[in-house]
Amino acid sequence: MIIKKKTNWFKMLFEWNGSVLPQLLPRLLLLLLFSLAVVCFKPFLLEHNLHINPAAFTLFGITLAIFLGFRNNVSYDRFWEGRKLWGALLNDTRSLARQSISLINDKEYETKRDEFTNLLIAFVYSLKHQLRHTDSEEDLKRLLENEFAESLKEVRYKPIIILRELGNWIKKAKADGKIDSVTQLAFEENLNKLSDIVGGCERIASTPIPYTYSVLLHRTVYIYCFMLPFGFVETLGWITPFIIVFIAYTFVALEAIADELEDPFGKQPNDLALDTMAEMIENTLLELNDKKINPLKTNSDYYIT
Amino acid sequence: MIIKKKTNWFKMLFEWNGSVLPQLLPRLLLLLLFSLAVVCFKPFLLEHNLHINPAAFTLFGITLAIFLGFRNNVSYDRFWEGRKLWGALLNDTRSLARQSISLINDKEYETKRDEFTNLLIAFVYSLKHQLRHTDSEEDLKRLLENEFAESLKEVRYKPIIILRELGNWIKKAKADGKIDSVTQLAFEENLNKLSDIVGGCERIASTPIPYTYSVLLHRTVYIYCFMLPFGFVETLGWITPFIIVFIAYTFVALEAIADELEDPFGKQPNDLALDTMAEMIENTLLELNDKKINPLKTNSDYYIT
Amino acid sequence: MIIKKKTNWFKMLFEWNGSVLPQLLPRLLLLLLFSLAVVCFKPFLLEHNLHINPAAFTLFGITLAIFLGFRNNVSYDRFWEGRKLWGALLNDTRSLARQSISLINDKEYETKRDEFTNLLIAFVYSLKHQLRHTDSEEDLKRLLENEFAESLKEVRYKPIIILRELGNWIKKAKADGKIDSVTQLAFEENLNKLSDIVGGCERIASTPIPYTYSVLLHRTVYIYCFMLPFGFVETLGWITPFIIVFIAYTFVALEAIADELEDPFGKQPNDLALDTMAEMIENTLLELNDKKINPLKTNSDYYIT
Amino acid sequence: MIIKKKTNWFKMLFEWNGSVLPQLLPRLLLLLLFSLAVVCFKPFLLEHNLHINPAAFTLFGITLAIFLGFRNNVSYDRFWEGRKLWGALLNDTRSLARQSISLINDKEYETKRDEFTNLLIAFVYSLKHQLRHTDSEEDLKRLLENEFAESLKEVRYKPIIILRELGNWIKKAKADGKIDSVTQLAFEENLNKLSDIVGGCERIASTPIPYTYSVLLHRTVYIYCFMLPFGFVETLGWITPFIIVFIAYTFVALEAIADELEDPFGKQPNDLALDTMAEMIENTLLELNDKKINPLKTNSDYYIT
Amino acid sequence: MIIKKKTNWFKMLFEWNGSVLPQLLPRLLLLLLFSLAVVCFKPFLLEHNLHINPAAFTLFGITLAIFLGFRNNVSYDRFWEGRKLWGALLNDTRSLARQSISLINDKEYETKRDEFTNLLIAFVYSLKHQLRHTDSEEDLKRLLENEFAESLKEVRYKPIIILRELGNWIKKAKADGKIDSVTQLAFEENLNKLSDIVGGCERIASTPIPYTYSVLLHRTVYIYCFMLPFGFVETLGWITPFIIVFIAYTFVALEAIADELEDPFGKQPNDLALDTMAEMIENTLLELNDKKINPLKTNSDYYIT
Repeated sequence: MIIKKKTNWFKMLFEWNGSVLPQLLPRLLLLLLFSLAVVCFKPFLLEHNLHINPAAFTLFGITLAIFLGFRNNVSYDRFWEGRKLWGALLNDTRSLARQSISLINDKEYETKRDEFTNLLIAFVYSLKHQLRHTDSEEDLKRLLENEFAESLKEVRYKPIIILRELGNWIKKAKADGKIDSVTQLAFEENLNKLSDIVGGCERIASTPIPYTYSVLLHRTVYIYCFMLPFGFVETLGWITPFIIVFIAYTFVALEAIADELEDPFGKQPNDLALDTMAEMIENTLLELNDKKINPLKTNSDYYIT
Repeated sequence: MIIKKKTNWFKMLFEWNGSVLPQLLPRLLLLLLFSLAVVCFKPFLLEHNLHINPAAFTLFGITLAIFLGFRNNVSYDRFWEGRKLWGALLNDTRSLARQSISLINDKEYETKRDEFTNLLIAFVYSLKHQLRHTDSEEDLKRLLENEFAESLKEVRYKPIIILRELGNWIKKAKADGKIDSVTQLAFEENLNKLSDIVGGCERIASTPIPYTYSVLLHRTVYIYCFMLPFGFVETLGWITPFIIVFIAYTFVALEAIADELEDPFGKQPNDLALDTMAEMIENTLLELNDKKINPLKTNSDYYIT
Repeated sequence: MIIKKKTNWFKMLFEWNGSVLPQLLPRLLLLLLFSLAVVCFKPFLLEHNLHINPAAFTLFGITLAIFLGFRNNVSYDRFWEGRKLWGALLNDTRSLARQSISLINDKEYETKRDEFTNLLIAFVYSLKHQLRHTDSEEDLKRLLENEFAESLKEVRYKPIIILRELGNWIKKAKADGKIDSVTQLAFEENLNKLSDIVGGCERIASTPIPYTYSVLLHRTVYIYCFMLPFGFVETLGWITPFIIVFIAYTFVALEAIADELEDPFGKQPNDLALDTMAEMIENTLLELNDKKINPLKTNSDYYIT
Repeated sequence: MIIKKKTNWFKMLFEWNGSVLPQLLPRLLLLLLFSLAVVCFKPFLLEHNLHINPAAFTLFGITLAIFLGFRNNVSYDRFWEGRKLWGALLNDTRSLARQSISLINDKEYETKRDEFTNLLIAFVYSLKHQLRHTDSEEDLKRLLENEFAESLKEVRYKPIIILRELGNWIKKAKADGKIDSVTQLAFEENLNKLSDIVGGCERIASTPIPYTYSVLLHRTVYIYCFMLPFGFVETLGWITPFIIVFIAYTFVALEAIADELEDPFGKQPNDLALDTMAEMIENTLLELNDKKINPLKTNSDYYIT
Repeated sequence: MIIKKKTNWFKMLFEWNGSVLPQLLPRLLLLLLFSLAVVCFKPFLLEHNLHINPAAFTLFGITLAIFLGFRNNVSYDRFWEGRKLWGALLNDTRSLARQSISLINDKEYETKRDEFTNLLIAFVYSLKHQLRHTDSEEDLKRLLENEFAESLKEVRYKPIIILRELGNWIKKAKADGKIDSVTQLAFEENLNKLSDIVGGCERIASTPIPYTYSVLLHRTVYIYCFMLPFGFVETLGWITPFIIVFIAYTFVALEAIADELEDPFGKQPNDLALDTMAEMIENTLLELNDKKINPLKTNSDYYIT
């Protein structure tokens, strides 16, 4: 996602990169040309009674705004729920890493602890790759034992299998007599939360807003915009097409943003910064284990640290 | 539910399958004919003062939009809550399957573990069948011991009895000395969550939006649409009936979508893909137990995997 | 609450029972007569400048719609929260009944278990009677030991005392050595949830929407409707009074529905089907204890099973 | 808070006590006089072009309604969250009182149990007094041991210190060998919830809606109302000032209600009935301990029991 | 954040400090001059048909209000979520401090307990400094042992490392035989909640509302305001520019408030009073440990105590 430093209110009016304007420009130009054509044919259209009552436009425009507001709301909620799930991922992996330190009272366990932390980090990366349909091989090889990384290649729900491995690590600690059932439960609760996070992300990724909604609103927004010139043809001076394009811009841009936010795990400019977040989780878990950490590699423009 | 690959913005305008348009077409044609009739009788209607002030229409149309927005919101919330419950079903069955592995430290338990997993899968399918009022016999026979499957035939709340069986499986593991009370509690918590999921689904399925709301809005939407021609009869040129149908389409289509989403467990095109979800849960639970899994049978158009 | 089978879109327009129309009819007729009177006195009113700018009506009508939308939202939230609480009641009583089976490993406990289940069922009925201010004596006698049922007569917060009894049943099981502290905790958590449910229902029942809101909106809606004729008197042909009544119907009906839903535990047609829900909980708990159950007595029109 | 018995729809129109009308009357009269003055100076104003386009009023009025709707929502949410917190207070104190009975298996503990219950009741009253900035001395003396009540005088966060005392009571029970760590945890969880309730109430009481919002909306509402006459001066007959006052009433009254609900723990007529709720909690806790209870002292008009 | 004592409704109209007006004044003056210029050039503009249909303005203004309402909602939710997180911080630190008293039965532990409390207070301050990007050195030196405070200098995620230290304090108490696993779990749960709070605050601070939204709305609001004069040029008397500025003020001020609330942890006048809250938490924790506390240093204008 794109995050800019605050500029003053005046410069912000001419912001270019942070907006969906570039992508919408061709459509808006088309509308501008169309409106200008309507201005040219004004006498013909008025003569043949081919204009529309502007009252119909007010009525319909506001109706459209209400429905678009609904779509907007739903998309933003999905975006924010996705963000919350990744926030919970940060919290729970931190809690688990902390518990591996303060609940296991054994100095020899330090190397084993690194194994646990690496499993946690691998869990995060494998979730990221699953959500983006990218290849997790490189990251998993870097973090896991060769054999286990290899066996994961064929696995469809990788984060779940890594989660099982985390459970097994704790099982072993119990078998070694380092923890009792009660302490195992403390870990177990956080593992359950990780399971909820995986499922939550899968839910958002696999179930978009019902397609019918998207089609209905998309269609209505564009038909509406291209009918606007007929509504204002009577009063249409040479300045009006620009107003029409401005009105259309707001409707069309909101629909476009809502469409981008709908799938927050994608790679469009307004989607979540999964790369930075994964790297940040890796850093904070390493710091908890007294490892040295580097500054975030990924562009600091994309995430406020 | 119908999920399409993203097409470009222009093609999306002419989408046919993903919309409720086909089902609404007859009604909209009726409205078109009615509007055209009003155009024909324009002089007669104006003479007898049988037209309506357009201000009344703006006022009322926006009011209607606000109320329809409310209905829409509520329906979508039900849809999304249904989806969340099935997401939680995935998470909790996964957690239980993982716990049956990492909380029971006994190699001999492997065959018994398959029994547990099968109970979980049977639980999912029986819930699906209960919500859709379909016959669960085939699925239960495939997954459960013959005797138990047979005894379930007469049972009214099947998922609850399967849940009791899951509880008994854990009870036996405790009686066998494989787990203690504390560990039993860890299972128990997830069983409680499954109980909440069953009840949550039953709640949505058994309690629709108060019928009075539906009647009121349905009635208002249609009466409104069929009165629209009287509002625009004064300015009604030959182009206006098409505008009226376009406005009506938005209102009527939104009402239709809201009506479909209200019961998310049905089999209408916009309802939840329970079949795919049940199959997906089966797959991920089997994978957790190191079983080979097949690609999803159900049409991949209906669920993004 | 009234639940009808889906009829087709056309028949639904003429639905009578499922709507609040019957109750509102006298008021709407009054408004119709009033509007017709305004039509008759049109010349007099215009002469004395006793009509109102229609712009004021558009402005005010939409404002009213927004505020009514808020009232509607709040009322529906109360209705749905009430439903959720009764859904949670189902889930938690089922969980407790299941726990009484799978957490207590003793064959002799079977008759005692029935006692526990009966306490749970009595809890449900006593809550229903408290919320509806009806007499719980009959139900409690049917389910509880005579002596205890008798002692409950004088009690003001009956469900809470039954809850204490459930706690004491578990205390006895522990004293008998059937369960340990850990298992007692598992029961205890679900008892806490039952306590939350009682309090939640009492909260909704004892704290309506601030009365000032109701008065303000009620007053505004009716004054608005009876001023409508003055707004349209200029353009008021013989068809307009019917339009006015139609607009008024939507506002007035929404206010009436919101008013009914506000107290979801009442006995008005749109309130929750507490009778059926209590009976359903009784059935599912009995089935869990391998008892035979009968079909629901209460009219299946009122609850989808 | 004011709760009235339902009257019929007609009488409700003339409700006086349950509304904020009395408090607003002077301002509305001022507006009426102002409007009448505008009617008198109509020719002068029109001549000097000192009237305003009514379109600006429609636009702005609806905008204002949307923003006021937001303010309203937020205020009501605070009111309802406050109510939920006091509902949770009821639930958790009941749960703790029940646990003091069913988790401690010792007949001698009965007098000590009364001490515990009194601490719970004192907790409730001290929270009430803290939220209302009233003196808790009398209530604390009535309920607590003299010495402890005396020491609380100097304490700033009284409920928290009482909470610590509750924790110490349980600590003593454990030291006496009446409960083990596991049972202590069951109490501890409910104490944590009480801590959350105190903090939640403090949060609502200490952090009002950002003052800038209140100022902005207050200012806009009143300026808007006093500009209304200029918008309708052209069409302003002798009936219009009354319409203007009616429109203004709705806006101004909603702002006033929102302002009252914002701080739900105050003593204004629409605030929460903390007195009755505290008394009700005292009653139900005493009944749980088999004490006789009296009917609620506080006016039954204020709380539905 | 600025909190004022309630003034009467009339004085509130002229409030200056509590509003964003000062900051917006230059822009509004610019708009006023621009509007006056339009009034001067009225004949020229009308002649060349350079005015805009006012219907377009009504339509667009309401649309804008709906979208601005959405932005507003989201910003306020972030503000309130931030407040809730700091409220939870208060609750959980209080709970932990109480547990360090009532769960550890040892008189000698009193000095160690102060260490624990100081760690909690240091946790709060370090979170505050992290969120505000200020230097925590002074506060940490005051509260922690020199050596540990020194080692924290290099640490990036300070609150997390202090949290680990809290975990280690409990680990030590267990190693000393003061508590068992079960009691450790009770602490552990509250530590998990602290971890959630840190992550929640980081989430809000690091992920603003998608920048595209802000740009789109900012741009639309200002362009809209500067086009208003062209919409009212036809009816534009000398009074209208003031109306236009008044309308613009509402839109622009709401956008400005929403922009301030978006990042609730900043130091703008409407942001959260983190300083006072941190000081208040310190006070209440010290009081729990029977220390004397001073009145809040920070200006009581900023927080209601």
